[in-house]
Amino acid sequence: MLQPPDTEPLDPPERTLMGPGPSEVHPRVLRIMSAPLIGHLDASFIEIMNEVQELLRYTFQTENRWTIPVSGTGSASMETAFANVVEPGDTVLVPTNGYFGGRMASMAQRAGGEVVHVDAPWGEPLDPDDVAAAFDRHDPEVFGFVHAETSTGVVQPQVPELTSIAHEHDAYVIADTVTSLGGVELRVDEWDVDVAYSGGQKCLSCPPGASPLTVNDRTMEKVLGRDTDVRSWYLDLSLLEGYWGEDRSYHHTAPITNVYALREALQLVAEEGLEARWGRHREMATRLKEGVEELGLELNPDDEFWLPSLNAVRIPDGIDDTRLLAEVQEQYNLEIASGLGDLEGEILRIGCMGYSARPQNVRLVLSALEDALAMQGYEP
Amino acid sequence: MLQPPDTEPLDPPERTLMGPGPSEVHPRVLRIMSAPLIGHLDASFIEIMNEVQELLRYTFQTENRWTIPVSGTGSASMETAFANVVEPGDTVLVPTNGYFGGRMASMAQRAGGEVVHVDAPWGEPLDPDDVAAAFDRHDPEVFGFVHAETSTGVVQPQVPELTSIAHEHDAYVIADTVTSLGGVELRVDEWDVDVAYSGGQKCLSCPPGASPLTVNDRTMEKVLGRDTDVRSWYLDLSLLEGYWGEDRSYHHTAPITNVYALREALQLVAEEGLEARWGRHREMATRLKEGVEELGLELNPDDEFWLPSLNAVRIPDGIDDTRLLAEVQEQYNLEIASGLGDLEGEILRIGCMGYSARPQNVRLVLSALEDALAMQGYEP
Repeated sequence: MLQPPDTEPLDPPERTLMGPGPSEVHPRVLRIMSAPLIGHLDASFIEIMNEVQELLRYTFQTENRWTIPVSGTGSASMETAFANVVEPGDTVLVPTNGYFGGRMASMAQRAGGEVVHVDAPWGEPLDPDDVAAAFDRHDPEVFGFVHAETSTGVVQPQVPELTSIAHEHDAYVIADTVTSLGGVELRVDEWDVDVAYSGGQKCLSCPPGASPLTVNDRTMEKVLGRDTDVRSWYLDLSLLEGYWGEDRSYHHTAPITNVYALREALQLVAEEGLEARWGRHREMATRLKEGVEELGLELNPDDEFWLPSLNAVRIPDGIDDTRLLAEVQEQYNLEIASGLGDLEGEILRIGCMGYSARPQNVRLVLSALEDALAMQGYEP
Repeated sequence: MLQPPDTEPLDPPERTLMGPGPSEVHPRVLRIMSAPLIGHLDASFIEIMNEVQELLRYTFQTENRWTIPVSGTGSASMETAFANVVEPGDTVLVPTNGYFGGRMASMAQRAGGEVVHVDAPWGEPLDPDDVAAAFDRHDPEVFGFVHAETSTGVVQPQVPELTSIAHEHDAYVIADTVTSLGGVELRVDEWDVDVAYSGGQKCLSCPPGASPLTVNDRTMEKVLGRDTDVRSWYLDLSLLEGYWGEDRSYHHTAPITNVYALREALQLVAEEGLEARWGRHREMATRLKEGVEELGLELNPDDEFWLPSLNAVRIPDGIDDTRLLAEVQEQYNLEIASGLGDLEGEILRIGCMGYSARPQNVRLVLSALEDALAMQGYEP
């Protein structure tokens, strides 16, 4: 027999989470995660599933019947979108203005799609004229864009313009709403978005593991009419239909506790009210933005593309971001993050999401930043 | 604005779980699930990841470097195995003796494999002679078998014989250990199993959402040498290598709380000791089996293939299983399950897994069964 390792019962540290996610989880959500489990085919669990679907529809602002949590973290709901909508040979238009457009490309290719790009620099949104030009040039079947880009702190404005360009070309629109759902204005039906996916651990303040997805009927017709099987069994919406649709028949075991947690996190969204919640995110992020500017720092995106839930702060000359992040963690138990991809070493990423979007957390970030910058000789 | 639904804070019912999973979760695991989160790239989380890997190696009885939890429920670790090991054009040999052989076929096909079968009736294990004949006939690159078949309550004996047949033909062996890991004797290295996957919610008594997978170096060479990309980005082991391997670079957000839970569930395995735990499962299931036999019922499989963690009990003539299951839930808050697939209506499935494998649970099942059978006029 191989012997067990010499490990102790788990005792993880506590952190104030103000990075790009996970955000801090509301105490009510943490409490529900320690509830004993029931079976995934239990009638009471089916009722919980129904409620999760209703609460998700509200949060996405959609009436889509096909609104479910995918049994994995945000990248699983993302791949569920691309793997189901994209059929081999489809042309898929994706953006170049951030990290997650690259991931879209990779997922679309694996689904058998031909990837084409609409360009914009990291740190800027897409220009509808460029999108229109890309449609004229490539005539894609599927168009993916990122509503709230976690790698750059940029929100995509003019979503209805983008979707109407796509629909004039009979294309399907997939929106990445990982860092907007529940924190930043998002109206799936009104904006005519066909498919939107998200994660739990951003503005919903839920532990990752069950990830929101909504698909409208028009897109489900494409999915259910595919000539070839979806390349993943686990993420195949035509099979998930048996479980999340009217039959409630067994497909796979749902992550029961994560569904509990998402149910409670969405209940908190409903209790707060979506518009009030968007307002709170904006108000807390405004405090953060103003505080950062008082320190003489500036946000990377233009004000009009500023994403309140993810604040990309330019690193001043001469500041070592790795050292700064280590200082704030060591001195304040605070998590904020460095840049990713093209903006590595150029920005800090400070989240302001869900339960983390509170006055005391904002104040802590500003104090910690001021101290950690001063330790490297920075003066505002 | 669409209005929120009229939902209340979640208050799920409590059940005694003696079905095919989820099993009851140990109180220490439930408690750790309400621990506040840390980031998935936090140095402390990396340490937790290391410990999970070490504990998983012990539980699988393997020294495989490639031993990780997949970020989804058991079907996700299952698909990770097939999607990575099977390349387009590979011949994949799978069994017909239970529900999960069928799922293997579907996953292998979606990965581009050609599926061939080795036959055995539902309720019986594979015969090594049949496996050898199937190898001679089809010369498959990949061979999948189910070590502990949840749909039939049958354990596959003679695993080393099966793996040696496969290796004589230079094939790779994938074992479904969903209902055996942590409850029934399983020795991945000693038995020469190349890949094994499992779930949390069976004998590990962990909420589903982070699912064990182990892959030996020889198989990882095949995976890393593929000519084509794995068809799922989310489940691609060559990308997961960046996160779970030495780099610890970002791939996707891990289901942090589920990793905590798995860490603690595996810690309980280590504290109990694997052989003692196998013994406890056998002892509790023996009490269950004897009690069931005293009621005049019999188990479906022959004694030599009996799977202690999942007891398939034949339904006596004249008993309506749907009514029986409803009675035991209503009167005793007890979950047991009916048959699946070929054995639907023929058997009841009574789990005896992990924290559920306790004297009081076994006693409750026997009392409840006796009462519910009597209500339908059954006499032992």
